[in-house]
Amino acid sequence: MVAGCYGRHMSKYWSDFVHQLQPYVPGEQPNIANLVKLNTNENPYGPSPRALTAMQAELSDQLRRYPDPQSSLLVEAAARYYGVEPARVFVGNGSDEVLAHVFHGLLSHDKPVLFPDISYSFYPVYCGLYRIAAKTIPLNKHFEIQLDDYPADNGGVIFPNPNAPTGVALPLSEIEALLERNTESVVVVDEAYVDFGAQSAVALTKRYPQLLVIQTLSKARSLAGLRVGLAIGHPSLIEGLVRIKDSFNSYPLDRLAIVGGAAAFDDVDHFERTRALVMASRERLTSELKQLGMDVLPSAANFVFARHPTLPGAQLAEALRERAVLVRHFKAERIHPYLRITVGLPEENEKLVQALGDVLKQDS
Amino acid sequence: MVAGCYGRHMSKYWSDFVHQLQPYVPGEQPNIANLVKLNTNENPYGPSPRALTAMQAELSDQLRRYPDPQSSLLVEAAARYYGVEPARVFVGNGSDEVLAHVFHGLLSHDKPVLFPDISYSFYPVYCGLYRIAAKTIPLNKHFEIQLDDYPADNGGVIFPNPNAPTGVALPLSEIEALLERNTESVVVVDEAYVDFGAQSAVALTKRYPQLLVIQTLSKARSLAGLRVGLAIGHPSLIEGLVRIKDSFNSYPLDRLAIVGGAAAFDDVDHFERTRALVMASRERLTSELKQLGMDVLPSAANFVFARHPTLPGAQLAEALRERAVLVRHFKAERIHPYLRITVGLPEENEKLVQALGDVLKQDS
Repeated sequence: MVAGCYGRHMSKYWSDFVHQLQPYVPGEQPNIANLVKLNTNENPYGPSPRALTAMQAELSDQLRRYPDPQSSLLVEAAARYYGVEPARVFVGNGSDEVLAHVFHGLLSHDKPVLFPDISYSFYPVYCGLYRIAAKTIPLNKHFEIQLDDYPADNGGVIFPNPNAPTGVALPLSEIEALLERNTESVVVVDEAYVDFGAQSAVALTKRYPQLLVIQTLSKARSLAGLRVGLAIGHPSLIEGLVRIKDSFNSYPLDRLAIVGGAAAFDDVDHFERTRALVMASRERLTSELKQLGMDVLPSAANFVFARHPTLPGAQLAEALRERAVLVRHFKAERIHPYLRITVGLPEENEKLVQALGDVLKQDS
Repeated sequence: MVAGCYGRHMSKYWSDFVHQLQPYVPGEQPNIANLVKLNTNENPYGPSPRALTAMQAELSDQLRRYPDPQSSLLVEAAARYYGVEPARVFVGNGSDEVLAHVFHGLLSHDKPVLFPDISYSFYPVYCGLYRIAAKTIPLNKHFEIQLDDYPADNGGVIFPNPNAPTGVALPLSEIEALLERNTESVVVVDEAYVDFGAQSAVALTKRYPQLLVIQTLSKARSLAGLRVGLAIGHPSLIEGLVRIKDSFNSYPLDRLAIVGGAAAFDDVDHFERTRALVMASRERLTSELKQLGMDVLPSAANFVFARHPTLPGAQLAEALRERAVLVRHFKAERIHPYLRITVGLPEENEKLVQALGDVLKQDS
């Protein structure tokens, strides 16, 4: 189902609000051989071998049994890793499901929820799904989140750190300053990409009961195909999410995701080694893109956000695609000149740089 | 988190409706050796070996990639099995997630949704989650769903066939009669247990655009631990569900569930063989329970619903538990005298019968 397919089948049987939904459109997952796929921020390195071994052991007749509805093994592994009590950890079927429950259970109030104008494009979709009023706050001219601009009178605040799709990180001090003044609504820091170079706010959850931190195993732990996401915060926030989850789906994580996710948290060596490789590649890619004349925002994520001073982003993305290199382009205001380029393997990054060099040479 | 834990942490940060939620409580998943576990309607036989092999092949570095957001491989396998077009199939993270989207996207109207007073206890929970008005219609004195009693003026109708937790099936002719008169709202037939002896309504979806049939791989295909559920119906109903799904979580099924579920549909031999074994065991178990003096409702499912003429259900369930046999007991009106007993392996059913015989002898 591609975006253009929506609307063919409008139906009197739908609940009214379904007609107004504007669903999220994920990056393409094409099945093309030799494609350099740098469009969905997947990790170029595989997941922990210990995670694969744990799932291997679970692949048996035991799949006839329901999973543990509390996913305790995974919750406990995450709690150990983050140094918090298990009662402060919620797990779900990918961080998108966790975010959906957060919007539904913690951010649906009379006052609008606040998020950056340029940010994860699923946030406004959740607001549509749960009919939540939203107000976007512009990034500054350097594409930085300006927390000083977030009014205290709100139904919640949510932003990614580092931000997506810009990759730009906020210092923890600015987040803490927000928490000091924004005490009457939930503050959600979406840390999908935090392990690639930003400062995590997890430690602050012990001091600020309104703070919820979102994490995922899809990025730095390279398990996008397994669907595991988390929220960390005060037990009362976690219980709100558990109430939603237990009113939605008792068993959101399958047996394989529970054991695989737990083993991934336990394999700290693999995690540290691969994220260091990705960060080193990002620095090299950034410098090569700059040598090609591109403007590159400072990234703390596993992708870079880059624009050419004159050539439109859509044109560059299309030209790269013709050269079997897939990057992500967003048509939205302010960011349409940019390409979001995932940091791949060194040889993939090299192919991107060569293809882009080709394109720019032809155009000059 | 057990039921009693709710409410310890009421929070000003919750969305208002969260305070009123009464979450579903799934059957226990205790980790006790030698327990005869007949409480959650799991299949006593393992899943298709072909499903395990397919998942084995997917357990690789490819887990770093997001799954196909449309789960096309699985949708196509299900469409082949049911003999319908892929545009008539929706898949989700277990039938509970599919049902949640159905309540949200197809059953939320001004008029109340109708379902039996004794039925899957998750239905009223979904109504609480999405604030949908509901009206329950009593089963008749034989614990049968009486579709004649369902008024035409409704926001949708949903019932399981066979019903849970009674196991009693409706003939297809009665469902078709309902569809003839109930054309202005969606009719959902929840066929989680249909493969154990009831008539499926899937073929009727081609003639009745308001009919949606729910299926799961957790029961007859023995993959409760993998979380795969489905909905089959007119493409306009499926599109309504896709709009909800794409506004909630782009990738609800992980890579392992997609390939394992598809292979399970393709392995028709394993499916036919194991469901025949379960049905034969059910007939034997029913007859043995009757010999012990129990009243047993006629079951078309992989469980039986049975009561003793005088002894309370709660007391029997507790006495069985003391003998390491776990069955499910519901405290609700009308059904509290009953035990819901999953059909296990022949030796497990034998242990249940012996333990129950013991209990009844001691009490007499």
